[in-house]
Amino acid sequence: MTTTMHRPTSESPALDAQSLWQKDKDHFIHPFTDFSVFHDRGCDLITDSDGIFVQDARGHRFIDGIAGLWCVNVGHGRAEIGQAMADQATRMAYFSTFNNLSNAPAAELAAKLAALAPAHLNHVFYSCGGSAANDATIRLVHYYFNRLGKPNKKRIISRRNAYHGTTYLAATLTGIESNNWDFDTLDHLVTHLSEANCYRRPEGMNEAEYCDHLVAEFEDTVAEIGADNIAAFIAEPIMGAGGVLVAPEGYHQRMQAVCRANEILFIADEVVTGFGRLGHFFASETVFETRPDIINCAKGLSSGYAPLGATLISDEIYEVLGTPQRKGGVLSTGFTYSGHPVSCAAALKNIEIIEREGICENVREVGPYLEAQLRTLSHHATVGDVRGSHFMMCLENVADKATRELLPVEARVGDRVAAEAQKRGLIIRPVGHLNIVSPPLIWSRETVDRVVAILDEAFTATTASLRKDGYL
Amino acid sequence: MTTTMHRPTSESPALDAQSLWQKDKDHFIHPFTDFSVFHDRGCDLITDSDGIFVQDARGHRFIDGIAGLWCVNVGHGRAEIGQAMADQATRMAYFSTFNNLSNAPAAELAAKLAALAPAHLNHVFYSCGGSAANDATIRLVHYYFNRLGKPNKKRIISRRNAYHGTTYLAATLTGIESNNWDFDTLDHLVTHLSEANCYRRPEGMNEAEYCDHLVAEFEDTVAEIGADNIAAFIAEPIMGAGGVLVAPEGYHQRMQAVCRANEILFIADEVVTGFGRLGHFFASETVFETRPDIINCAKGLSSGYAPLGATLISDEIYEVLGTPQRKGGVLSTGFTYSGHPVSCAAALKNIEIIEREGICENVREVGPYLEAQLRTLSHHATVGDVRGSHFMMCLENVADKATRELLPVEARVGDRVAAEAQKRGLIIRPVGHLNIVSPPLIWSRETVDRVVAILDEAFTATTASLRKDGYL
Repeated sequence: MTTTMHRPTSESPALDAQSLWQKDKDHFIHPFTDFSVFHDRGCDLITDSDGIFVQDARGHRFIDGIAGLWCVNVGHGRAEIGQAMADQATRMAYFSTFNNLSNAPAAELAAKLAALAPAHLNHVFYSCGGSAANDATIRLVHYYFNRLGKPNKKRIISRRNAYHGTTYLAATLTGIESNNWDFDTLDHLVTHLSEANCYRRPEGMNEAEYCDHLVAEFEDTVAEIGADNIAAFIAEPIMGAGGVLVAPEGYHQRMQAVCRANEILFIADEVVTGFGRLGHFFASETVFETRPDIINCAKGLSSGYAPLGATLISDEIYEVLGTPQRKGGVLSTGFTYSGHPVSCAAALKNIEIIEREGICENVREVGPYLEAQLRTLSHHATVGDVRGSHFMMCLENVADKATRELLPVEARVGDRVAAEAQKRGLIIRPVGHLNIVSPPLIWSRETVDRVVAILDEAFTATTASLRKDGYL
Repeated sequence: MTTTMHRPTSESPALDAQSLWQKDKDHFIHPFTDFSVFHDRGCDLITDSDGIFVQDARGHRFIDGIAGLWCVNVGHGRAEIGQAMADQATRMAYFSTFNNLSNAPAAELAAKLAALAPAHLNHVFYSCGGSAANDATIRLVHYYFNRLGKPNKKRIISRRNAYHGTTYLAATLTGIESNNWDFDTLDHLVTHLSEANCYRRPEGMNEAEYCDHLVAEFEDTVAEIGADNIAAFIAEPIMGAGGVLVAPEGYHQRMQAVCRANEILFIADEVVTGFGRLGHFFASETVFETRPDIINCAKGLSSGYAPLGATLISDEIYEVLGTPQRKGGVLSTGFTYSGHPVSCAAALKNIEIIEREGICENVREVGPYLEAQLRTLSHHATVGDVRGSHFMMCLENVADKATRELLPVEARVGDRVAAEAQKRGLIIRPVGHLNIVSPPLIWSRETVDRVVAILDEAFTATTASLRKDGYL
């Protein structure tokens, strides 16, 4: 693994950090940003990167513990991906994929994805990211049931604390309550079940009983709404932004069985779990032994080097989508940038790297070590739970380990831990009282040791500061 | 203008055209594709490009008359954009822009867009294309009115035959009826007015009366629904996919006045008209003398070299968006790839080229010539109307010029003209009975002459084939 940071060369103009900071603050409306601090503090500009590292405009260097945002799976600074993008941009940057036109990288990638995905998923609908992939999926699912003459099968069953993106519809699928504060949603289209949260399951239930309970809730919901009114169930194999929640053993298979019994499509949102994070290109079949009708992916698909999303669709559904709805009808959905040649070229090179360097194998080898080492942090006063799988991990902070009671929101415990880690050269993601670790998939055991040593110090410092401020 | 085609070099692997064709047909679900022909015919692969030309996998070379899909404004094969993308991808391909983090190209581009846009539009919300830009806009508009304590101001007024994209919400904004055949829409959120179609305006109305009529329809609709229930009016300055419809003189200003009188936001969808197509970076203020509260752009923003969309928001609206909705609240919308560094780097280089080469000036110079020369095709039997402005033009085919009656759908007149043009080395876009000409903005007068000569032959051949088949 390379550890030298990319530095501005004669080709890379030096950046005027102060001017950029000001431009950013004056003109860029950032997603998911707290304006109570933004107007004063502005943003840290991440300007350089290499391998497992990123560097800000002031020259501070960090281990990237979040892979950009669950996505830079092959690590930073891969010149060969940049070169593949430049070659394609120069050769043929863009042409429409509407009306019987296509391009080479989109065709090649579609075939590659069909080969990597479970055997029955052979058809690819492209978009530019996870939100659009999920949005397009629901639109296609509704079209599918209209075409089958079942226009009432429309409701989508999602789960509380699910994250499926932020188009108008994707935000409705999302079940994180604070995400929709003062935003509107399309509540007639989506019903949310409970999330599968083993750490906070009802008192006195063991994991098997909890699984029964969750499956029964789904069955009851189907009975209440009526299978004739339900189109699909959508779920992340491991819930990501909602807190890296690993469902009880057998959960996904049993939820799928409820779907099958009721002609409800089973959609796996593998935007985070796909492309190696759990040690395989797709987790649904290999890890969770399910057979989704549709798998969505994005993020790791291109390792974030270019915007790209893909919806992988079963042969059975394609048979319906792939016949005209009426004379003169076309499949009238999709984006200008569906199958963008440069984004697809980036994804092809990314997949080549994952295969060539054995990155899934690295995750299967180092992932359990990361899990085990993070668990050694459980002795810290606030660390109530360490959970996740392989390169998708989370630490949950609490005030009291016995009662699992949370610290007050204003203690900002997740922010404190993240700030202490950042001071020590590691970026991890705070989400409320949680800290998420979702690194590039090229971490070695040595990197894990270094990260865990930093986190050990960060939790010690956080505990001290919480005590000082009277929260512990 | 360069006319040498990019050819595979030692760096560009030769393509196996037959294998790619098969992969495409087996695995790529194309947007807006007619499956009644796709399963047999598959797709033509566009593999190479340069300047005003593209080339397919079989070595056929074409003048690109559609700029990819209204977007390759600076023309094909711009190695310097590819290089800018490779440099950024290698230096820092991706990091989150959530939570007080940013990157240099996104900050720089936001400031540049604020400088190019009308003076009061200084705040940029990024997405990956026009659909997502429009979707995000409506979500932000609803949030804005919720924040103002006006939760009933939700209805969006759009227009029939408008095209605003294909997310679930954007497809609802879209008013092209066939686009939503067998798809569902969110009809409680959107009301469609008549499109402004001067060619097919009601019998006996002159253009000024037609304008009065359209404005009165808007006023009546506001009265009927109630201003308190209406959030925004969204319109393309010139309707694009709906048929390049140029509204009557003064229309946009008067629609804006109705908006102002009723606290309805005025949103300009400049996905097509932006970045030079009408001779200016933005058309709203310079061409149509309007002052939108929000302008959406995509396509020409990056000339299609990378997926990118942007919503430009007024200072007044930003004041509301830029204060937390409640304690601990963040502006909880936006995409992983909002402000993608590589896409923003492509856009910055694209804008540099537009400015350096005087591409807007070229459009202002050559555009009127293109319009005038296309009008010389009016003598052909089917050419009922030639309309548009500058590099955004359309020819409408009819059966009878006096009655404006259309040919039957099965005559596929738009397809015939496009096919005849393609045989002669020119790609134009068929949309039903229309043919759209929306070229890269680097066409010279000589190119226009060559294109019009091809179209002249294509219409002659089409007339002959329609006569032979008994349609004329």
